[in-house]
Amino acid sequence: VDTPALLLDLDAFEANLATMRDRLAGTGTRLRAHAKTHKSAVIAQRQAAYGAIGQCVQKVAEAECLAWGGIGDILVSNQIAGRTKLARLAALSRIVQVALCVDDAAQVEDAAAVAADAGIRLSVLVEIDVGMGRCGVPPGPPAVALAQRIAASPHLIFGGLQSYHGRAQHIPSREARAQAIGLAADETRRTVEQLRQVGLDCPVVGGAGTGTFALEAASGVWNEIQAGSYVFMDLGYAGIGDPPPFRHSLFVLGTVISAARDGVAVLDAGHKAVAVDSGLPAVWQRPDLVCTGLSDEHANLRCEGARPQVGQKLRLVPGHCDPTVDRHDWYVGVRNGRVECLWPIAARGAMA
Amino acid sequence: VDTPALLLDLDAFEANLATMRDRLAGTGTRLRAHAKTHKSAVIAQRQAAYGAIGQCVQKVAEAECLAWGGIGDILVSNQIAGRTKLARLAALSRIVQVALCVDDAAQVEDAAAVAADAGIRLSVLVEIDVGMGRCGVPPGPPAVALAQRIAASPHLIFGGLQSYHGRAQHIPSREARAQAIGLAADETRRTVEQLRQVGLDCPVVGGAGTGTFALEAASGVWNEIQAGSYVFMDLGYAGIGDPPPFRHSLFVLGTVISAARDGVAVLDAGHKAVAVDSGLPAVWQRPDLVCTGLSDEHANLRCEGARPQVGQKLRLVPGHCDPTVDRHDWYVGVRNGRVECLWPIAARGAMA
Repeated sequence: VDTPALLLDLDAFEANLATMRDRLAGTGTRLRAHAKTHKSAVIAQRQAAYGAIGQCVQKVAEAECLAWGGIGDILVSNQIAGRTKLARLAALSRIVQVALCVDDAAQVEDAAAVAADAGIRLSVLVEIDVGMGRCGVPPGPPAVALAQRIAASPHLIFGGLQSYHGRAQHIPSREARAQAIGLAADETRRTVEQLRQVGLDCPVVGGAGTGTFALEAASGVWNEIQAGSYVFMDLGYAGIGDPPPFRHSLFVLGTVISAARDGVAVLDAGHKAVAVDSGLPAVWQRPDLVCTGLSDEHANLRCEGARPQVGQKLRLVPGHCDPTVDRHDWYVGVRNGRVECLWPIAARGAMA
Repeated sequence: VDTPALLLDLDAFEANLATMRDRLAGTGTRLRAHAKTHKSAVIAQRQAAYGAIGQCVQKVAEAECLAWGGIGDILVSNQIAGRTKLARLAALSRIVQVALCVDDAAQVEDAAAVAADAGIRLSVLVEIDVGMGRCGVPPGPPAVALAQRIAASPHLIFGGLQSYHGRAQHIPSREARAQAIGLAADETRRTVEQLRQVGLDCPVVGGAGTGTFALEAASGVWNEIQAGSYVFMDLGYAGIGDPPPFRHSLFVLGTVISAARDGVAVLDAGHKAVAVDSGLPAVWQRPDLVCTGLSDEHANLRCEGARPQVGQKLRLVPGHCDPTVDRHDWYVGVRNGRVECLWPIAARGAMA
C-alpha cells in the first residue's frame, strides 16, 4: 500500500456495526446511519446488513451517489436551497424513497412547486433547533405552524421532526451531555404533542449522533438514530467522558520521508490527507511519537524514544473522520495485515 | 452556478500573474510556480504564458498530472520515500524534465538504484533547513557531504539546493520577516560557497513563497522563486504587515440555506468546502456578515445588519487557498459576472 492511504480495519469496522445494532436492539429506535461520514454506498450496504433501515445525507449529490449504489431510503437531514437542487431530489424520488428538511416557509413553497411540477409528493420534515444553534425553527408553535403548511400542500407529506443536538455530541462531561439531551428531549416531546393536538402525527422523529445516541435511544422520544461516526470512531470522541463503545477503524497510513533532525520525524501525510478541524491526529499504538503539527503535505512528529527511519510506515488516527474521508477516493480495507478490498468513496466531494 | 462552487475571478487572477512577472523582472530570478496551490495543468500553462519556467510539486502524483497536461519542467520540492514512487518519477523523466529533493543518504542510494534500473540520470537537489524546522539537512558541511554523494553517482546529477523558509511566510511583522529571510540567505550563500570550494556548482537555488518572495528575489542568493499562493491570495496573507501585492481571486460560493434565527444566517459551505487550518473565511465585500464558525457542511454567519434571505448567494474568501482547492474538482472561471470557463483540478487528491 503506497502512502498516504486511507485504511479501514475491517475487523474493527464490523465490530462497530455489531455494537451499534446490539445497543439499539429493544430501544424502539431504528438506525438511519449518516452517510456524511463515510460517503460510500458500499459502507451503507454493510450498515444495512447490520440493521440500518436507511441513510441520512447532508447534500443532494450524496443522495444521488447512494441511490446509484442501491440504497433505497434516504433522508436529506438538511435544508435544500433552490429549485434546481430540489428538482434533482424529486427526480431521485422516482427510484428511491427520499425526504428532506425545512426551517422556512419559502422552502415549503419551493418543495411544493417542484413536487407539483414533477407530479410527485415529497416527504418533508420540520427541523427544530434543540440546542445546536444552527438551522431549525424553535420547537413548539413555530414548528407546528410550519408542519401545518407542509400538510396543507397536496404535493407534500409531513414526514415528522428533525431534532439533532450537534453541540452535545462532544461535551466532555457525561452529566452535562445527558442534561443537554434531556432538555432537547423535553422540547421535542412537547412539539410532538402539540403536533398531535392539531392532528399531525410524526412518522419520523430523527436525531442523535455517536456521542449521545444511547441517550436519545433511551428517551422514548426519538425513533430514528442518525449516528455516522460510530463506524470509524474519531479520536475526538475517544477523549470525552464515558466515550462511546466503538473501536478506531479508520487510519491514514503515512511514510516517514525525513528524519534529518534529532528527535523529529516527518510523514508524507499533512492536512490535505487528514482533517485537523477537531485537533491533531495521534500515531496509532505509538505513544512515543507525538504529532506536533500538520502542514499541507507533512506531519511533524516529536520522537520521545528511538527516531523512526526514513521509509517506515505509520498509522495516524484522525481527530475527525468525516472530513478526512472526504479527502480520499478509496478505502483500503485491511484484515490481519493484508489488503482485502478497495471500496470507492463515491460521494467524495459531492457537496452540491 | 450551483453551490458550493469554487470561483476563480479571472481578472484578478490575470492581474496576479502579471504582478509577479513584473516584480521578478530584472532580479535575476526565475519563477518556478508551486502547483501544490492550484493542482491544475491549465493554471500552470497560464503561469508559463506569464513567464514561469516550470513548476514545483510536493508529490509524484502531482508531477504526473502536470506532465500529462503539457508542463515540461517539474521539480518535486520534497523528499520521496520508497522506490515505487521513485520509479514513477523515473518513468516521467522520459517525457519531461524532472528533479527531486533529498535530505538523507538512503534517499540518494534509492534514487541512484532506480535511475540505474531505468537507464537514466536523475537530477537531485539537497534540501537544507534554513529555519523551517521540518525537512532538510543543516546548511554547510552536512549539505556538502550529501551533494558529494549525489555527484559521485553515475546515475544522478547534483541539481542544486532547495532552501525554503516556510515559517517566515506568515510572520506578521515585515521587519521580522526580513530578518528571517536574511538569516536564511546567509546560510544558503555559505553553503553555495562551500559547494563551489569542492567543485560543485548549484544550477538551481530554489525557495521562497508568496509572503517573502521579494526578499529572496532581491538577495542575490536564490535563482528560482517557488511562490504558489500569489495566484489566489489567501486571506492569511492579506493580514500580515506590508502584505504581498496580490488580489483575492479565489472564492467559495455558498447559498444561504437557513436564516431561522435573528442575526444568524447559515451557508451550505462548511469546512469540507473551505479549509480552516489557517483561520475562518471572510464574506467578500460584506463586513456586516462575520463568519463565526464552520462545521462539515455549514458556515455560520453573524449578521450585524440586515439578515440575508434564504437562497441568497455569497462569496467566502478562504483563509488558506491550497487545501481549499484540493477539496474541489473544478474551477468556475468568472469575468464580469459571467461564467467564462470550467478548468479541471486534475491533481485534486493526488497525494501519493
